[in-house]
Amino acid sequence: MEYKAQYQEYLLQATAALDAASDRFLPEESEVCRAARYSLLGGGKRIRAILTLSVCDMLGGEMQAAAQFAAAVEMLHCYSLIHDDLPCMDNDDLRRGRPSCHKAFSESTAMLAGDVLLTEAFEVIANAPAAPQVCVAAARALGAGAGSRGMVYGQELDLKYEALAATEEQLRLIHRNKTGALINAAVQMGAAAAGATPQQCEILASYAYGLGLVFQIVDDVLDVTSTPEQLGKPIGSDSENGKTTFVTLYGADGAMALAQKLNEQICRDLQQHFGVKAAFLQQLAQQLLVRKN
Amino acid sequence: MEYKAQYQEYLLQATAALDAASDRFLPEESEVCRAARYSLLGGGKRIRAILTLSVCDMLGGEMQAAAQFAAAVEMLHCYSLIHDDLPCMDNDDLRRGRPSCHKAFSESTAMLAGDVLLTEAFEVIANAPAAPQVCVAAARALGAGAGSRGMVYGQELDLKYEALAATEEQLRLIHRNKTGALINAAVQMGAAAAGATPQQCEILASYAYGLGLVFQIVDDVLDVTSTPEQLGKPIGSDSENGKTTFVTLYGADGAMALAQKLNEQICRDLQQHFGVKAAFLQQLAQQLLVRKN
Repeated sequence: MEYKAQYQEYLLQATAALDAASDRFLPEESEVCRAARYSLLGGGKRIRAILTLSVCDMLGGEMQAAAQFAAAVEMLHCYSLIHDDLPCMDNDDLRRGRPSCHKAFSESTAMLAGDVLLTEAFEVIANAPAAPQVCVAAARALGAGAGSRGMVYGQELDLKYEALAATEEQLRLIHRNKTGALINAAVQMGAAAAGATPQQCEILASYAYGLGLVFQIVDDVLDVTSTPEQLGKPIGSDSENGKTTFVTLYGADGAMALAQKLNEQICRDLQQHFGVKAAFLQQLAQQLLVRKN
Repeated sequence: MEYKAQYQEYLLQATAALDAASDRFLPEESEVCRAARYSLLGGGKRIRAILTLSVCDMLGGEMQAAAQFAAAVEMLHCYSLIHDDLPCMDNDDLRRGRPSCHKAFSESTAMLAGDVLLTEAFEVIANAPAAPQVCVAAARALGAGAGSRGMVYGQELDLKYEALAATEEQLRLIHRNKTGALINAAVQMGAAAAGATPQQCEILASYAYGLGLVFQIVDDVLDVTSTPEQLGKPIGSDSENGKTTFVTLYGADGAMALAQKLNEQICRDLQQHFGVKAAFLQQLAQQLLVRKN
């Protein structure tokens, strides 16, 4: 199937799984769950969900299980955005072109909405239509990517280096944890749904961390070259805060050149191992490189 | 074994499991994890852990798995306390006789510490030494108890009725969700480690929710009859805030009489189904009824 049509199909599968998970685990009578739905179902690129689905598909795995894992990783990603936007963290009022959760609701409701999304992400996995060992593998992957040796550690590093000048090595460590670890969790959950071999998981991890880094470099570039309308959030916030980014290190052009080089490498490695079946994941990486928001 | 000796043995098992989980999942180099350890390892009654272990023991189950689940439920309970104490929630400066997490560290570190404990609780379960279907059953129990149809919903109701007068029915609904649901999760994880039958799970759920309610009624009473030194936290906060409690509904003596009646009932029901093996859980309920902090 052609890339765009395939992308749309995965997106439909992810959306259906998210709707089903919301119906089951985010009851309408709770305001906290309405706040969670506001943030969860309010759009977004769904890259993590699409990674879970496409990796599973590439390996010929169980798409029904993968769809549940895809919903789970989006719920987890959404919780991290809600908590990240809170006044005690980044204090962002705008997210995806709309008021962020604590602005649309309240601070306490937004915090609980994040808590509920994090909890329900694991409940979705535990209730996925798959063999217990597959669910356990997925839960391990999500826990490892989201927790103390992954995303939360990345958030800690990000706050720590907000005011300090970071080296490229430190910057890479932040991105590897803050973005790469959850992207890897998405990929590994797709692999779990397909019963992938350890070697396959390792190759996919390289792809995931590479993709995460490219994604962040492009983010840094868009922060100085895009408009608030295109991005759906304020621009220039990094330089205003005096944050080290790949743009402050190499300039916008230098950063893009680095992203391009990294991208070529991860696509080449993937094709070497998975051949023609890697086509979708390669094109996805390419699209994330040239994206405008 | 005599009750007190048995209690101490369970406590040692729970402490060892918490130490092991901290070593593995809360690395010292992270300040967020140090904040999580500060709150997690700083004492507490460990009632939930002891419930998980004693239920598993009563049913002749796998104590090694139960010990991991016991650690997980304490991590989850601890996250809820940290987030509950934050300024946007209850704004409590004192917890277990020490500065609460956001006072000892910072607001952002405390929020992330809660997030990490919640995440790692599920990772501990996914890595427990048990059959995958046992881990999945435990994760389902914890997710159901902690999330949108359990503890977080209870916190939402608690905030909602903070300023409003609540009826007894509403008060019971708050406690059932805010306290009962996680106590039930603790009990059900012990049952999962022992491969309990659905009927056993049902009887244990009645015990758990009854125990949670008695616990809360006693909490309400202690809030007016105890001292800050005994409790390790400020007293009189409920009445200051104009909150409806079992004491405002029935007075301290009336509330204690109700707690006693409820307690007799849950102990009787438990003994009817599990006979002499229920002795520890009965005595635990009795101790929680007569506790002074």
